[in-house]
Amino acid sequence: MPVTAINQLPVTKVTATGSTEALDKLATEEPLEIRLQFGDDDTRETRNVSVTMRTPGNDAGLALGFLFTEGIISGARQVQSIGHCFIACNDDRQNVIQVTLKSGVQPNLQNTERNFYTTSSCGVCGKSSINAIRTVSAFGLALPDDNITTVEVLNSLPGALSQNQEFFDDTGGLHASALFTNAGQLLLVREDVGRHNALDKLIGVALDQDLLPLNQHILLLSGRASFELVQKAVMAGVTIIAAIGAPSTLAVQLADEFNVTLVGFLRDGRFNIYTSTHRIKI
Amino acid sequence: MPVTAINQLPVTKVTATGSTEALDKLATEEPLEIRLQFGDDDTRETRNVSVTMRTPGNDAGLALGFLFTEGIISGARQVQSIGHCFIACNDDRQNVIQVTLKSGVQPNLQNTERNFYTTSSCGVCGKSSINAIRTVSAFGLALPDDNITTVEVLNSLPGALSQNQEFFDDTGGLHASALFTNAGQLLLVREDVGRHNALDKLIGVALDQDLLPLNQHILLLSGRASFELVQKAVMAGVTIIAAIGAPSTLAVQLADEFNVTLVGFLRDGRFNIYTSTHRIKI
Repeated sequence: MPVTAINQLPVTKVTATGSTEALDKLATEEPLEIRLQFGDDDTRETRNVSVTMRTPGNDAGLALGFLFTEGIISGARQVQSIGHCFIACNDDRQNVIQVTLKSGVQPNLQNTERNFYTTSSCGVCGKSSINAIRTVSAFGLALPDDNITTVEVLNSLPGALSQNQEFFDDTGGLHASALFTNAGQLLLVREDVGRHNALDKLIGVALDQDLLPLNQHILLLSGRASFELVQKAVMAGVTIIAAIGAPSTLAVQLADEFNVTLVGFLRDGRFNIYTSTHRIKI
Repeated sequence: MPVTAINQLPVTKVTATGSTEALDKLATEEPLEIRLQFGDDDTRETRNVSVTMRTPGNDAGLALGFLFTEGIISGARQVQSIGHCFIACNDDRQNVIQVTLKSGVQPNLQNTERNFYTTSSCGVCGKSSINAIRTVSAFGLALPDDNITTVEVLNSLPGALSQNQEFFDDTGGLHASALFTNAGQLLLVREDVGRHNALDKLIGVALDQDLLPLNQHILLLSGRASFELVQKAVMAGVTIIAAIGAPSTLAVQLADEFNVTLVGFLRDGRFNIYTSTHRIKI
């Protein structure tokens, strides 16, 4: 099976009038191992930092965005090259990607997922998770208030996304993250079976295009807003997040702590604002 | 904020006719650290095995289900006790749970998430992920064919779930896993902000009630069917999985390899069968 975002598989479709055999388009899901190579020219070290289940495509963006939003690297300028490793495998898949840092650049490998959520002082709780982000965020500490948008712009975003989602209509199985200007102009869309991967891809591409911090933009999430997604957005300096689905309590608390405007249930011409309402002209 | 599955937070509701201030019910999301204590009576060792973002409630089931579906323990009989650890924290939350194994029981700590997806022979690919499950699954190798259900039963499941989902209507933000008999009788429902947590909770409770292998049952998933969810189901001996959302390619491949019947898009009186159609009378 080729490495594509969509694959066709046989299916038996059952309806009230009987069953038929057909081909169905499904979202591809395959593991991606992200390897990091770093050190001086004469003493290179390679470390596996993550294995994630993702939809193939934009793997370089995914790797770059993951390393940045997890606080392992601080910017694209630290990166020398990104490329797939070909591994001996029956299907010759491209499921390992290596990010090579410039000579002498030291990654912050203590910023693993687990470290985000735990501190030695109080074990693990929502408050310690939020505080951990404070220590690694490049942009989150002083998110500006001058990013203003309107009710009309927000209500236009879901339609713009669905017109530009390449794969969702075919599969019904992909999450999307989209970046808009605060006037509602679509800049980027990325899709994946994993919502965190879709956002990592988007932020990785934005980083590569030198668009960060994303503080004059609106980030649209096709589904729910969890803590993890708001955390990644804060790392990229996002000041307005709009989700078509529901937010969680910890997502709201995190947005509130960092002065991020968080909109939820954005659909059918209505929405809820959970935090920092001042960026939306009503 | 108390540790409950739902919390109320202030929200600005914006509609075509203006904006109003209100209280909105949101799904609670908090980290849970799972600790494992094991060894002989005189040499006990404690290891942190996972931190997951979850909705509080059924934490013991979540911990037990996680350890079992990841292949770290082989059954509830290995467990001596499960209980929360109180950690010094402002809000006195219960976000650490410790599973203590019986004296002398050795957990299989090599079965971490990463090891599921990688083998030394061929790096990381869908095929190696599937093969890895073969080596740790207690029930998956010989899933029986005698679990038969009907089109009518399958079409009745989404309605039965929505009548019994305790929190979704309030928050719009929770995934559910539900266990039915093959005649459509509801046995268990568990909900969580994370779909993998909802399934771990369900399997943990089923394990505690000595219901495994779940090979005369139907597992209903409220959303999409990913590789990870099918993997956990295979570990519990599930033979029929029905998802209200779309499956991914690797979920279908995994179900096919293990002779699991996988149904997707189960809604509005119709559905697709992707694998092992012989268990459904059409």
